[in-house]
Amino acid sequence: MTAVADGAEPRPMMGSGAEFDLIRKLLARANSDGRTGARDGSSVVEWGGVRLGAGDDAAVVEGGRLVVSSDLTVEDVHFRRSWVTFAEVGERAVTAAASDLAAMAASPVAVLISLAVAPDEAEAVLSELGDGIGAALGRLGAPLVGGDLSASPGPVFIDVTVLGASEEPVKRSGAHAGDELWVTGVLGGSAGAVRVWRAGDEPTPGLRESFVRPTARIGEALWLADQVRVRAMIDLSDGLVGDVGHLAAASGVRVVIDPRLVPVHPELADGDGLPLAMSGGEDYEICFAAPPGVTGPRTDEFRERFGIDLTRVGHLEEGSGVEIAGANDARDGGPGGFDHFSLRKGSR
Amino acid sequence: MTAVADGAEPRPMMGSGAEFDLIRKLLARANSDGRTGARDGSSVVEWGGVRLGAGDDAAVVEGGRLVVSSDLTVEDVHFRRSWVTFAEVGERAVTAAASDLAAMAASPVAVLISLAVAPDEAEAVLSELGDGIGAALGRLGAPLVGGDLSASPGPVFIDVTVLGASEEPVKRSGAHAGDELWVTGVLGGSAGAVRVWRAGDEPTPGLRESFVRPTARIGEALWLADQVRVRAMIDLSDGLVGDVGHLAAASGVRVVIDPRLVPVHPELADGDGLPLAMSGGEDYEICFAAPPGVTGPRTDEFRERFGIDLTRVGHLEEGSGVEIAGANDARDGGPGGFDHFSLRKGSR
Repeated sequence: MTAVADGAEPRPMMGSGAEFDLIRKLLARANSDGRTGARDGSSVVEWGGVRLGAGDDAAVVEGGRLVVSSDLTVEDVHFRRSWVTFAEVGERAVTAAASDLAAMAASPVAVLISLAVAPDEAEAVLSELGDGIGAALGRLGAPLVGGDLSASPGPVFIDVTVLGASEEPVKRSGAHAGDELWVTGVLGGSAGAVRVWRAGDEPTPGLRESFVRPTARIGEALWLADQVRVRAMIDLSDGLVGDVGHLAAASGVRVVIDPRLVPVHPELADGDGLPLAMSGGEDYEICFAAPPGVTGPRTDEFRERFGIDLTRVGHLEEGSGVEIAGANDARDGGPGGFDHFSLRKGSR
Repeated sequence: MTAVADGAEPRPMMGSGAEFDLIRKLLARANSDGRTGARDGSSVVEWGGVRLGAGDDAAVVEGGRLVVSSDLTVEDVHFRRSWVTFAEVGERAVTAAASDLAAMAASPVAVLISLAVAPDEAEAVLSELGDGIGAALGRLGAPLVGGDLSASPGPVFIDVTVLGASEEPVKRSGAHAGDELWVTGVLGGSAGAVRVWRAGDEPTPGLRESFVRPTARIGEALWLADQVRVRAMIDLSDGLVGDVGHLAAASGVRVVIDPRLVPVHPELADGDGLPLAMSGGEDYEICFAAPPGVTGPRTDEFRERFGIDLTRVGHLEEGSGVEIAGANDARDGGPGGFDHFSLRKGSR
C-alpha cells in the first residue's frame, strides 16, 4: 500500500519506488544464503520442492496454488481519524490487502489481522474496526483465522495478511511487446479525496467513497484471466505510472501510456484529474496486459457483468521503463524513477 | 506475543487473557456469517472443503498441511531501544513468530514481514533490522517472501507472519486427564531481564540473552511430537500459568502445576525466580501434555540432542482451569483469570 504523505507540505515518503527498493534490499539481505534467484525484479526460492516467489503482488507458495500477501495501514500515514471512521479503516485495510490477490487472479481463502491500538481507547476502536473488518470479509467470503493484538504507544496499526488460492496465478512478468494495456474502473478518486481533506474541506461523496470503500477486483480479475488471455496483471495501489513501471520491469518491456485514454474519476475537476489519475494511487483498480484485439470486443459484456468500464490506456513495446505518449521526453518508470516523475510532484 | 507493560507501575495491558478475549471477540464478529464453529475456545471454519482453524497457536489451512500465524512487535510495548539493538529486535520478532510453528509441530516454510519505521531513521533502522531478520531466517531455514513497508509516526512496528508445514499439527486441544505436563528449558529469564531494565540496571548476560535471543523450539517440538506421543502443545509466550490455561480450556481438562518442579532460570535470585518462571512470559519454551511414563525415560536423550532439559511440571485432571499445587485455593486459570493471578501481580 502506498504511504500517503502526511503534513502540510507534500514530501516524499516511503512508498512506491522507495518502498519497493527497500523491500527488495531486505529480501536480498534476508535471503542471502543463496536460495534466492532474483529475476526481473522478482525473487524465486526453491524450498523442498515447493516454489516460492516474492516481489510480485503476492508470494506464490505450495507449488503455485497458494498465494499470500501482507498490507499495512498506519494511522496518520494512510489515514487520519478526522477523515474516516474506524469501521471504514478496517474495511479498507482488508480490501487493500485483498486487492493483491485480485492482481494475481487468486480467490481469497483466509485472512490474518494484527492490530495495535492504544489501551485507553482499545475497546471502542476495536469494536468499530471489527464492524468494518467483518463487512469486508463478508464481501470477500473469507474467514479471519488469526492475527495478533498489541497495545500501541499511540497510532493505530493494522497489518492484514491474505491467503488466496489460484490454479494459475497471473504475474507481473508475462507481458509481451505488442500487448495492449488495460485498466478497470476510473482512476484518481482516492487521491482526489485525500487532497480535498488536506485542504481542510470535505470531498464529494463519490471521491470519498473511492478512498474509504475501494473494491478488491477479485471477480473481475478472475473473469479477465479466464476470458481475455491476460498475460500480466497488477493492482493500482501506488498509482498507474508507478505500478506499470513494476510491470514493465518484471516483464522486460516498455510501457507506453496515452494520457488521453486514461479514465479519470468523473468528480475530479478538469485540470486536476489527469495527474491524480496517472499517479494518485490507492484506487485498487486492476491493470493488465493482453494480446491485441482480444479485450476490446468484450468490454460491453464486462460492463454489464461488473458495472464498471474496461479501458485501454496504452500498449507495450520492446525496451524498458514507462513512456507517457505526447510527453516531451520519455522517462524511466522503473523502481526509483517514479518518485521523481513530474506528474506526481504536481499531484500532491 | 505478550504485551510487556511499559511505565513505572505494573498495570494490566492487552496481552495474555485480555488479548485472547479480544481476538476471540473479533474473530466471532468477523466470522458472524455462521461459517465459524467455535469449540473449546478454538474456531474451525469450513471453506470449500478446506478446514481452517483459528484460536490455536497457528491457524491450520489447506487440509491440515499448512499452518499460519502472525506475531506483532511494537516499540515501547515489547521492547525499548535503550535495552536492545534493532538487529536483536528483528531477530527476536521472527523467532517469536516461529515459536507458534513450534507449538504446532510445524516446520517453517516462508515468512512475511510488515515494518513501519519513522522516515528520518528508516535507512539505519531497516539495515539493522535486516541483519537480525536475516540471522533468524537463516537459523529457521525459511525465506522471506513478502511483506509491506510503511512510514511510522514514531514507534517501530514489526508484524511477522510465518507459514509452516506439518503433516499432523499438534493442537492445544488433545490433552487427556491423567497426562503429564512437561516444559522445555528454563523459565523466567526473559521477564527477569525486563524487570532489571525497568529498575534502571543491566541484566546479567544470561537473563539478557533470554530476552534478546530466545529459541523457537522447532527441532525440539518435531522430535517430541514424533517420539513421546505429545497430545497437546503450546509455546510459552504469555507465561506458564496463562498459557496452560489456554491448553486446559481447549482440551477441557484441569491443569495442576507443582511449583516446586518448575525449572527457574539459574540467574534469577531465589525469592524472585518462581513468580517470574510461573507468569513472566516470552520465554518461548514449549509446554506439552503426554501420556504418563512416556517422556521420563527420554529426558537424557533429549538433553544430549538439544542441550536443554525436559522437566515435568505437573499433570492433568478432570475439570477445568489451572491449579497451583500447595496454593491455598485453586484459581481459575482460564482466559481472563490469568491477569488477576496473584503470582503475576507480584512479578511485575
